[in-house]
Amino acid sequence: MKSYRKELWFHVTGRRAFINITPQVEECLRESGIREGLLLCNAMHITASVFINDDESGLHHDYDAWLERLAPHAPISQYRHNRTGEDNGDAHLKRQIMGREVVVAVTEGRLDFGTWERIFYGEFDGNRRKRVLVKIIGE
Amino acid sequence: MKSYRKELWFHVTGRRAFINITPQVEECLRESGIREGLLLCNAMHITASVFINDDESGLHHDYDAWLERLAPHAPISQYRHNRTGEDNGDAHLKRQIMGREVVVAVTEGRLDFGTWERIFYGEFDGNRRKRVLVKIIGE
Amino acid sequence: MKSYRKELWFHVTGRRAFINITPQVEECLRESGIREGLLLCNAMHITASVFINDDESGLHHDYDAWLERLAPHAPISQYRHNRTGEDNGDAHLKRQIMGREVVVAVTEGRLDFGTWERIFYGEFDGNRRKRVLVKIIGE
Repeated sequence: MKSYRKELWFHVTGRRAFINITPQVEECLRESGIREGLLLCNAMHITASVFINDDESGLHHDYDAWLERLAPHAPISQYRHNRTGEDNGDAHLKRQIMGREVVVAVTEGRLDFGTWERIFYGEFDGNRRKRVLVKIIGE
Repeated sequence: MKSYRKELWFHVTGRRAFINITPQVEECLRESGIREGLLLCNAMHITASVFINDDESGLHHDYDAWLERLAPHAPISQYRHNRTGEDNGDAHLKRQIMGREVVVAVTEGRLDFGTWERIFYGEFDGNRRKRVLVKIIGE
Repeated sequence: MKSYRKELWFHVTGRRAFINITPQVEECLRESGIREGLLLCNAMHITASVFINDDESGLHHDYDAWLERLAPHAPISQYRHNRTGEDNGDAHLKRQIMGREVVVAVTEGRLDFGTWERIFYGEFDGNRRKRVLVKIIGE
C-alpha cells in the first residue's frame, strides 16, 4: 500500500469565497503515482469546507445567499461563540451545511468523477492563510 | 490490496425520490470478494445524494417536506443558477444538506452497519438516468 | 494492509448533547498500530452524528439552538415519522445537517488534524446506550 500527503494553502481576501481546487488535487494524484485507491480532501480549519458540486458562478451566488439566510453573519451577538471575542459563529454553522471533507475514488490514476463533479474549497471566515489536506492511499 | 469499482444506474420518474440501494451495494461487496476495508458510495451527479438513514416512508415524506422548506423549488427565478436555462437550482442546495457520499466499514465481508442503517439514493432532479459509484478497497 | 475495528458506547442523559470523543479515537489509533492510512468514525444510529469542529461550549449551544430552529422537536405531530409511535422525527433531520461520519487521515501514527479539529459525538435522541464505530485501514 502506498500513501501520499500534501497540504494546500489558500488565502481568501474577504470573508467568504468558493475556489475550484480540482487542478491542485489532480496534481497531488499525479505526484502520488497511485492508480487505484481512495483520496481524502478535507479542510484543516473548522470555519471552512471542502465539497463537490458544479463550477457555475450563479450557483455559487445561490449557495452564499442561502447559507447567509440559514446562518446569518450579523448581528454577531446572536451567537454565544462570539462572546469569546470571535465574530465567526456563523462560519462554524455554514461549514456544517457544506461539509468538512470529500472522499473520491481513484481509478486508473484519475479522480473517478461524474461529468460535472469538481472539488471546491469553501471559505466562510477569510482574510488569513488556511490549509486543506490531501491524503491518498492505494496502489 | 484489492480494489473494486461499479456504477449503479437509476431512473426516477418525477422530480424527487428516495431509493433504498442497500441490496445493490451488498451485491457489489459480494462480487468484490473484499473482507476487510472501506466502501465508498457516492452520487456521480451534483443534484443527487447518497446518504444513510432509516427505511421508513413517513420519514422520507418528512425529509422531502423539510428540504422543500429549506430550499424551495419554486419560484425558479429565485436562483441565479436557473438563469443558465436550468430549473434545478434547488436540487443543488438540497443535495448539500443530504450529502454526496457515504463511507462504510467492511468487516468480515459485510457492510458494518448498526441495526437500522440503510443506504439511500436521493434524487432531487429526476426524469433522466443517473449514476452512483461504488468503490471498495481492502483485502 | 492492516485493519482495526472498535465500537465505542455512549449514554447521554437527556435528549441532546455533544461529546468530545477525540481521546477515545486516539486510543483506538494507538491500539491499531497503524501509521499511515485512513480512519473512519461513524454513528451506528440514525439519530446521532459524528462530526469535527471546535471544543467550545458557546459554539455547542449555538449548534443546538440552530438545529432546533431548522428542525424543531415539538410539536411532534409535525413529523409523519412520529406516527410510528416515535417522537424522534426531528433527530433524523438534525443528524443530516451534522453528518453521519468523518474520515480522518492517519499520518506517522497520528490523527492528521488542523489546530482546532476535534471529533464529536452528537446525540439528538438520548436516554439510551448508543454506538460509534471506529474502523482504520492502512499500514
